Amino acid sequence: MSNPSLLILPGDGIGPEVMAQVRRIIDWYGDKRGMRFDVSEDLVGGCAYDKHGTPLHDDTMAKAQEVDAVLLGAVGGPKYDKLDFSVKPERGLLRLRKEMDLYANLRPAQCFDALADFSSLKKDVVAGLDIMIIRELTSGVYFGEPRGIVKEGNERVGINTQRYTESEIARVARSAFEMARKRGNKVCSMEKANVMESGILWRDVVQEIHDAEYPDVELSHMYADAGAMQLTRWPKQFDVIVTDNLFGDLLSDLAAMLTGSLGMLPSASLGAPMANGRPKALYEPVHGSAPDIAGQNKANPIACVLSFAMALRYSFDAGDEADRLEKAVEKVLADGVRTADLLGEEGVTPVSTSEMGDAILAAL
Amino acid sequence: MSNPSLLILPGDGIGPEVMAQVRRIIDWYGDKRGMRFDVSEDLVGGCAYDKHGTPLHDDTMAKAQEVDAVLLGAVGGPKYDKLDFSVKPERGLLRLRKEMDLYANLRPAQCFDALADFSSLKKDVVAGLDIMIIRELTSGVYFGEPRGIVKEGNERVGINTQRYTESEIARVARSAFEMARKRGNKVCSMEKANVMESGILWRDVVQEIHDAEYPDVELSHMYADAGAMQLTRWPKQFDVIVTDNLFGDLLSDLAAMLTGSLGMLPSASLGAPMANGRPKALYEPVHGSAPDIAGQNKANPIACVLSFAMALRYSFDAGDEADRLEKAVEKVLADGVRTADLLGEEGVTPVSTSEMGDAILAAL
Ligand SMILES: CC(C)[C@H](C(=O)O)[C@@H](O)C(=O)O
Ligand SMILES: CC(C)[C@H](C(=O)O)[C@@H](O)C(=O)O
Repeated sequence: MSNPSLLILPGDGIGPEVMAQVRRIIDWYGDKRGMRFDVSEDLVGGCAYDKHGTPLHDDTMAKAQEVDAVLLGAVGGPKYDKLDFSVKPERGLLRLRKEMDLYANLRPAQCFDALADFSSLKKDVVAGLDIMIIRELTSGVYFGEPRGIVKEGNERVGINTQRYTESEIARVARSAFEMARKRGNKVCSMEKANVMESGILWRDVVQEIHDAEYPDVELSHMYADAGAMQLTRWPKQFDVIVTDNLFGDLLSDLAAMLTGSLGMLPSASLGAPMANGRPKALYEPVHGSAPDIAGQNKANPIACVLSFAMALRYSFDAGDEADRLEKAVEKVLADGVRTADLLGEEGVTPVSTSEMGDAILAAL
Repeated sequence: MSNPSLLILPGDGIGPEVMAQVRRIIDWYGDKRGMRFDVSEDLVGGCAYDKHGTPLHDDTMAKAQEVDAVLLGAVGGPKYDKLDFSVKPERGLLRLRKEMDLYANLRPAQCFDALADFSSLKKDVVAGLDIMIIRELTSGVYFGEPRGIVKEGNERVGINTQRYTESEIARVARSAFEMARKRGNKVCSMEKANVMESGILWRDVVQEIHDAEYPDVELSHMYADAGAMQLTRWPKQFDVIVTDNLFGDLLSDLAAMLTGSLGMLPSASLGAPMANGRPKALYEPVHGSAPDIAGQNKANPIACVLSFAMALRYSFDAGDEADRLEKAVEKVLADGVRTADLLGEEGVTPVSTSEMGDAILAAL
């Protein structure tokens, strides 16, 4: 049997340097745990635009469709801010999500004990926090038609369409209920059913799937604005949150910030099972390309490393190996090893990106 | 000359009891400061539905168009949750906003010194916080067409339309720049121009209005997801935030929760000037109808009282009288007077809704 395949897309900004640490960890798994991967690497985002005039070349898209999992670093940078909408770095990422049909975006917001002081929230509000946001990723206002800027009379008008089908809602709801069963067995679904019909359908379908297939899971519904409030007030009330693409964008970033450690948070974007039973999958850190510190060997590689841990768990059925990697990261943090973004406390030594990689490898 | 006119719409839940305290304060201004208002009262929300089968009767709508300012309590409650979308309590409020064309929703997020400990955020993050969110209130996905739930094949599809015209963006941008000039002279505009064309137009028009009419104001742009993060991380970086209807809904609730005192926060919704020069205006607390504590004389009336202070400032050109009322509220808080929602500290006495009214009147 051939090795499982990984496509690595380091992308822009700090993407390449954090991904370099992940490659060392992938090698470690090959050497020490006998888990070998066929790894290929390609371009996405601004660097792909620089080379091909498009943020995602068709060949890269084709490769992404064939591999067992894609690992992505980050895309974007000020250099590309003025590009036309259609070729901006983000379009590369959005095309991957859409064409691979990665409808369930898993965004854990976990507060690491060693970093609880680092949050802008009070320690008792965030210590031990462990919630999972499941964001719909292939539909909604991100992809709905019609869209664009049109002329009406002598005015420009900007238009986007929020559009959800019943089956799009149903499948991400199932992802959330399945996830809840492996965790605290609680799902909170968020929308604006009080002002949007698409929110009414969202609420109804989530409730129907619950009643028919997951009556054992505790389900509640919350308006997204109240959700933003409750996440800020007392986030530990939540276990799994399921929400649409746009609300999920804001709410998962908010939840990430609660933990005080954005540089720590991974994500998985999963689609339907392929012929080999593995889901289509893309793994990426929640943080962006951080152009201000790119190339300085300063960035925190942990979010990217933990994204690979999610790949081990969700693509390669190696939950125990994922645990091993997560424990190694926890140990390194408990030992006080910190990249520059995690400073602000006393008695800790700042390390570089590659030194953080060294420390994680040593802990493994 | 006749007195300025006020239409009071107490609404549902705790609306009537908090509004009762405002009426006492209105009377105080008549008796003690010679500021008399012609006050009428009517129904909105669930109570209007109970009586008329609609959350806002046409006669009430007509009255709202004629008065100098509307004061609203809150709408909604579990009793009305199963009502059809078209007659839900919220529709009454949304109709007022739309037909009065109240395009600029001013939502101050201020942290009262006496309450800084009450936030879920660390004291140094929120103490002294004073930001103003200006939310577009009459357009966007709240009102865009087409909308609804339609059948496609054998599936239901939920549709809403985000739609902004250039002039809709321009006028609320002007409100934000005008406001900034009276404050810290800084505006941050938030959208998702990286994924939505309506966001691109938003960003472009805000920039154009800035360059042409307000070059003296410092302007920045931020993606709304990053905005949610930054509001959580270090909210004091902001002065005025301007954003669309839906993002404004989430971000202003988030900002409100930062202060730890939702029961304290007022809002003003302003439209174009009427013949007498006053803007069309509706004032309402940010909090909801809190059905769980309705009718128990427990609710905090301060948000509603401070909404009347905003009316004094923005509708009746009486900034000094607004200051007087705000100072009275501050004094009461500094004295340790607290309604039940503001407890959790030691050495404070919980008071009822009407006792809080007494205390504010005494401080005046
Ligand atoms: C980069 C951008 C297109 C993207 C999004 O809006 O989805 C990002 O914010 C995210 O959350 O992954
Ligand atoms: C009650 C509801 C319709 C309303 C909104 O979504 O605008 C509320 O959340 C608000 O922010 O005033």
